[in-house]
Amino acid sequence: MKARIHVTLKNGVLDPQGKAIEHALGNMGFDGVEAARQGKYIELDLAAGTSKEAVDEMCRKLLANTVIENYSIELE
Amino acid sequence: MKARIHVTLKNGVLDPQGKAIEHALGNMGFDGVEAARQGKYIELDLAAGTSKEAVDEMCRKLLANTVIENYSIELE
Repeated sequence: MKARIHVTLKNGVLDPQGKAIEHALGNMGFDGVEAARQGKYIELDLAAGTSKEAVDEMCRKLLANTVIENYSIELE
Repeated sequence: MKARIHVTLKNGVLDPQGKAIEHALGNMGFDGVEAARQGKYIELDLAAGTSKEAVDEMCRKLLANTVIENYSIELE
């Protein structure tokens, strides 16, 4: 069983990594890039039967800083 | 138009961030975690009509280190 977790900065939080990507792509001649944001992508291999609530707790307690970050969980 | 890009380490490449997550979750009492891998998630806002080939080139030239990383692109 797998969990795919995306952790992204909330809107309005400054994203220096994203800005760096945006500027670098512009400098390299890619004109079409209007904005870039960078987040984290975490894949967990879980024992069968692990609940979504447990994964949610992992996100709140360790994986995301909920003051400035949002997270989303996909289980499969 | 948006591009969602996932950059993940290739299999067999050591992933210290993933290992740190795995151990931290174990120490916190989450028993069900068998493995963790961490990658990057990048969202680009693109001008309409930007081709997938252009985004692929951005990945190869800047966003991913193709020696050790894989990337996948979703356009929408």
